[in-house]
Amino acid sequence: MTTRVMVDDLRAFCIEALCRAGAKRTHAETVADVLVMTDTWGTFTHGTKLLRDYVKRVRAGGLRSDTEPAVVSSGPAWAIVDGGSCLGHVTSVFAMQQAIERARKTGIAYVGVRNSCHFGGAGYYAWLAAKEGLIGVSMANDIPSVAAAGSRRSVTGSNPLAYAVPTGADPLLLDIASSTVAGGKVYAAFQRGEPIPNNWILDEEGHPSTDSSLYPAKAALTPLANHKGYGIALLIETLSGLLTGAQITWQVGSWIWGDATQPTGHGAAFIAIDIAAMGPRDVFESRINGLIREIHESPAADGVEKVLIPHEREWNLRRHALVHGIELPSDVAGKLSGLAEDIGLRPDWLPHCH
Amino acid sequence: MTTRVMVDDLRAFCIEALCRAGAKRTHAETVADVLVMTDTWGTFTHGTKLLRDYVKRVRAGGLRSDTEPAVVSSGPAWAIVDGGSCLGHVTSVFAMQQAIERARKTGIAYVGVRNSCHFGGAGYYAWLAAKEGLIGVSMANDIPSVAAAGSRRSVTGSNPLAYAVPTGADPLLLDIASSTVAGGKVYAAFQRGEPIPNNWILDEEGHPSTDSSLYPAKAALTPLANHKGYGIALLIETLSGLLTGAQITWQVGSWIWGDATQPTGHGAAFIAIDIAAMGPRDVFESRINGLIREIHESPAADGVEKVLIPHEREWNLRRHALVHGIELPSDVAGKLSGLAEDIGLRPDWLPHCH
Repeated sequence: MTTRVMVDDLRAFCIEALCRAGAKRTHAETVADVLVMTDTWGTFTHGTKLLRDYVKRVRAGGLRSDTEPAVVSSGPAWAIVDGGSCLGHVTSVFAMQQAIERARKTGIAYVGVRNSCHFGGAGYYAWLAAKEGLIGVSMANDIPSVAAAGSRRSVTGSNPLAYAVPTGADPLLLDIASSTVAGGKVYAAFQRGEPIPNNWILDEEGHPSTDSSLYPAKAALTPLANHKGYGIALLIETLSGLLTGAQITWQVGSWIWGDATQPTGHGAAFIAIDIAAMGPRDVFESRINGLIREIHESPAADGVEKVLIPHEREWNLRRHALVHGIELPSDVAGKLSGLAEDIGLRPDWLPHCH
Repeated sequence: MTTRVMVDDLRAFCIEALCRAGAKRTHAETVADVLVMTDTWGTFTHGTKLLRDYVKRVRAGGLRSDTEPAVVSSGPAWAIVDGGSCLGHVTSVFAMQQAIERARKTGIAYVGVRNSCHFGGAGYYAWLAAKEGLIGVSMANDIPSVAAAGSRRSVTGSNPLAYAVPTGADPLLLDIASSTVAGGKVYAAFQRGEPIPNNWILDEEGHPSTDSSLYPAKAALTPLANHKGYGIALLIETLSGLLTGAQITWQVGSWIWGDATQPTGHGAAFIAIDIAAMGPRDVFESRINGLIREIHESPAADGVEKVLIPHEREWNLRRHALVHGIELPSDVAGKLSGLAEDIGLRPDWLPHCH
């Protein structure tokens, strides 16, 4: 059972919900853009499903509505941004725009963020750079939910990493957690009453489990490919947390389960690289499109129609969604229905509340 | 059966072998530093085991001895380096030094490399930055040896990625292939006559195989965690190949099996981030050491003595090796014996030739 909604209707609902909670309209529009784009990609774990919990924090004051992100220190190719504990999406868009502007002058720029909050899907911010013709990289830390290689309990966040590269058409884009899967996937399986593969989580004894109900209180996510994901998570913690003055590991507040009146202190990092600074744009585009052709023409494995480039499937889903609407899975529609009830909204596309 | 050798003796042998082949002494010293350091970490697949094949290329002229790497274009926070087809280690050290110098002025710098060759272990170059108090990132492309997610044959190189972060003591360091394992590990298993786990390679039909003899002619390595490693490999191909003017995928020459009289055209990329530009060094060190303590104190899984930070084991191996010598595995000693015979050297620590 899915719920179909047109992109404009979903966006308007997000904006209205955030504004009723007290968010500035400009902030609400930014958050809506991030969440709806993420849903058009079919990445429902990180789209509007999260809105109800953001709204709760805005109403409680842990996400502030009276602040704006600001550069607190900077040099030629870097800046540190203080998010003022406003919505993490707003701070992240601001930070990536700073990175893009600086990279246009210097070739590459790093912008680190502190006093932010959960920013949704990392891929959106990387895409902001690619849309402007730059290579974008985005990442963030979070509360510990992932075991280290050899640990029994959570040590790092499921720290996401995304990049996007312009191609002249759909950007090449990757958005991954440094855990085997994002916690949201375990949680979604639990909500749908489904078991999970035995390599996604470790129970309190540090043993693999297929019981999605254990997460997060009594289980840790496994790190992606063991020591490799653990190491990637620590690079993200370094660039997002240690270097920015943000909170790290257990100092970070849980944006879902923590006290909604208090800031979470998340960190994040954004890097932009200006392709045009380093050579003719058309040469780069010709080369990357040659690479994409080569991949498309490579022989596919049994049962696979065609070898795709990263995010190709998601761009196709988005094209379809822009014309025909998004088919929201039941867990997403359920969260939105609950939110609609919280704030007294009744959009006609949304089934009645759970 | 291992062969013990003191670090200075191994280094002197590497230098002598390269000089006899025609390499400049300065180049030979740089390559020796990279390979011997890698062996002290116990990363024997990427250390002096590779020397014989580098020497073969130097003698044949595919690796040139009459060139030096040079910056061919640059901006405030970036440079493109042409390696002139000299030894890839020399070009890579030069490029990371360029990145470090530039990052000290701008906060972050990117240096891309073309006309290089295989550079050994990526971790060495990341460490160069950490040794100077900067965060270092290094990566390189290579001939296709790894399947894409959904492909039957090799699409990308096993493109390595390394980073290092200074801590005031041993740097936090990660050096990983974007394949499940580096091809050198499959090759080493074949040389030792050992089978391999069934998730390392795909045979010509695209099916998992435990037969290490298939690689590389009749098998592709699997990408790390499927679409994640494939995506990471394409980011590395972008920064090392597409952006630098280097060869990419099937244009790259095989430094082992290809015509040794011809350049391989490898690309690479190096990024340095200056911690001191963004805040007091002692604050950063205090924070990262707090994180390391927290990891060390986290409960270990069954059968694990202590949760380690990335490369902690390798730094401990190096400390031991500096005092007691390196215990070279038989496959490494065999390659060095063959090289000794090629060039008419008979170091007393090396068993007679195979």
